[in-house]
Amino acid sequence: MNIQTLKGFRDFLSLDAKKRQYVMSTWQKVFESYGFEPLVTPTLEYDELLTGKYGEEGEKLMYRFVDNGERKVAMRYDQTVPTARVVAQYQSQLPVPYKRYQIQNVFRADNTQRGRYREFTQCDIDTIGLNSATSDAEIVATVYFAFKALGFTSTKVLINDRVVFEGLAPEAIATIDKLKKIGEEGVCKELVSRGISSSEEEAKNLLQSIIDAKASQRLEEIFAVLETMGVPKDAVIYSPTLARGLDYYTGMIFEIEIPEYTVGSVAGGGRYDELIGMFAGRQIPAVGVAFGFDRTIDAMDEMGLFPSEVLQASAKALVTIFNKDLGQKSLEVSTKLRSQNIPVELWLDDNAKMDKQLKYADAKKIPFAIIIGPEEAEKNVVTLKNLAERTQEQLPLEDLIKKLLQ
Amino acid sequence: MNIQTLKGFRDFLSLDAKKRQYVMSTWQKVFESYGFEPLVTPTLEYDELLTGKYGEEGEKLMYRFVDNGERKVAMRYDQTVPTARVVAQYQSQLPVPYKRYQIQNVFRADNTQRGRYREFTQCDIDTIGLNSATSDAEIVATVYFAFKALGFTSTKVLINDRVVFEGLAPEAIATIDKLKKIGEEGVCKELVSRGISSSEEEAKNLLQSIIDAKASQRLEEIFAVLETMGVPKDAVIYSPTLARGLDYYTGMIFEIEIPEYTVGSVAGGGRYDELIGMFAGRQIPAVGVAFGFDRTIDAMDEMGLFPSEVLQASAKALVTIFNKDLGQKSLEVSTKLRSQNIPVELWLDDNAKMDKQLKYADAKKIPFAIIIGPEEAEKNVVTLKNLAERTQEQLPLEDLIKKLLQ
Repeated sequence: MNIQTLKGFRDFLSLDAKKRQYVMSTWQKVFESYGFEPLVTPTLEYDELLTGKYGEEGEKLMYRFVDNGERKVAMRYDQTVPTARVVAQYQSQLPVPYKRYQIQNVFRADNTQRGRYREFTQCDIDTIGLNSATSDAEIVATVYFAFKALGFTSTKVLINDRVVFEGLAPEAIATIDKLKKIGEEGVCKELVSRGISSSEEEAKNLLQSIIDAKASQRLEEIFAVLETMGVPKDAVIYSPTLARGLDYYTGMIFEIEIPEYTVGSVAGGGRYDELIGMFAGRQIPAVGVAFGFDRTIDAMDEMGLFPSEVLQASAKALVTIFNKDLGQKSLEVSTKLRSQNIPVELWLDDNAKMDKQLKYADAKKIPFAIIIGPEEAEKNVVTLKNLAERTQEQLPLEDLIKKLLQ
Repeated sequence: MNIQTLKGFRDFLSLDAKKRQYVMSTWQKVFESYGFEPLVTPTLEYDELLTGKYGEEGEKLMYRFVDNGERKVAMRYDQTVPTARVVAQYQSQLPVPYKRYQIQNVFRADNTQRGRYREFTQCDIDTIGLNSATSDAEIVATVYFAFKALGFTSTKVLINDRVVFEGLAPEAIATIDKLKKIGEEGVCKELVSRGISSSEEEAKNLLQSIIDAKASQRLEEIFAVLETMGVPKDAVIYSPTLARGLDYYTGMIFEIEIPEYTVGSVAGGGRYDELIGMFAGRQIPAVGVAFGFDRTIDAMDEMGLFPSEVLQASAKALVTIFNKDLGQKSLEVSTKLRSQNIPVELWLDDNAKMDKQLKYADAKKIPFAIIIGPEEAEKNVVTLKNLAERTQEQLPLEDLIKKLLQ
């Protein structure tokens, strides 16, 4: 039997699970500080709701099956289509604008060799039902401060308005979008080979005209709002050749880069006024962003941004059990510490050698061990062992509490 | 097209999602204060791992299908079997005891008319790899304090040791387990009709012998530890006829009741030493509990235990926009308030009537609205409207900050 996870699916044991929780709860707090409220939708939806929404590629990657009741169902593939359903289904109940965030897992039967997972966490925030420069800017500012709250200080926002591509064919935009990857020459060659420009010179002129394009009036407004919202001016970079592949964007587009993290952008989004109304049967403007959840975790690891509380056990100390007779003392100390809101773990077995208990604390990354042996019991103190520094001291319970509350 | 969720599946819009988040994060904190660490497993597993683990009923209710790669897969049905897989797969990496909590959704194609959902949240904590009275007691204490942290003050722990049923056939135990539902007479009749007792008198004697059974030595130890752990004596009720249906329990069993909430128990668990080793190929003792997540939300609603922060919008105030000219002022105020860690929502459109903005704040349960009109701008103050009390006052920004930080 395969005692393992399916390819592309992951377990998250304590430390990894805690890192993910930390990022999620940090972001939730930022999102809520701007008035975005949570939305949770089911893992399964009617297949007909999702089908035809993700292009040819998406159709192949969707998890779909027939359930026990002969219903065609599909697993969550993204969070935009379910949100569009929610907007249609609860129209009258939802505030306008509807500002929601959603952090759930999606399922794509993708090629795992490309470093992709088949179940992964998506994190989106969107402002739905309004088209304004302030709403565009607010999404960008929220993302900027979401990364700042995690400790990223060098975050750059590359930003553009799809209006600069007006009149260009989708293939031309897709080619220009590759500028960073293949360089100016590469882009020009591809513009010619794709028959978009008739000569390399024409291609060069086309590309140059885009590079020289002035920021749109809307972008200028967005820049001004961003500044008042506290996003530093030098963090916002007007990038006229930024296209973002997806052709559903209708206005501002942006990507978030962490210069120290070279794998790729960690978030991206923009205005997409034609998509959210798909089920409601009318045009509903929207602006939003998708965070790269796994990449963010990765970047935080690389840059050492997780605070030590996240990288350690939740318990601050292991209260060891010296022997069966002294077990009651240890139990009392653990209760006392918890009553002071100090998370501690009590060793649960009165038959284990001290060495085994200390190794357990070490393996679990619990920073301290507390020992109450016969000497400590008699002197009415405890021994506090700092497991990383390999130091120890005896102190009375009140001082222990003070020390652990620091 | 069906613009709706599948039967038995639910959306959670802002308020409901926030309630669930609140319960989860409150519990996580309690679990971690006892040294339980999070575990997250995939939504899909190899079908062969899950098959045959949940009895005849479970086989029918599982969501299973063949994926694009011709693998037989199944959706998470519970959290115990995946945990057993994790224990077998990562044996050497896991601390012993392995104390983990898991809060994820499971999928059961159950009859929704029984008020059951097909996707619902399970919350489990377990201590794996150890058999001791302290570990039994710790699970019970953690559950008790998890409910206390939510504001439940009348929580009762019904507790028993399966040892009282030693020598009894499973059908006899199942019958006795119904005592609360069908009464003594009902139980005796069923004991006879099932051929367990040959007469009603014999049945009465059997039942009485169980009702009179003294608490086991192990239970007495557990009671003593619970008391030292701070669980009030009168919250723990020895219940010799409590059997809990599942026949995999091997020692202590318990259920948590909230007297004011009459739908049923809100958590239950016990020691089950024969299950977790199923994939590891050896006996691994374990004790744990499953929380009734939906019932807990339900009980909190009924008893009014959600704090007002959870029942309101996350934003404390809506900063309205008086008109286009004064928009900049409002934007500055919202940035200032957020820099003081006051979550506020900024109205995003400089073309809306004040009435519309106030209605929006009301609908979204934002408690305050802030208005900066020409008069306020000139006097360098803001108007703060308490939307519930329909009162308002003018005050300078510094006082506004103080007031909202209260």
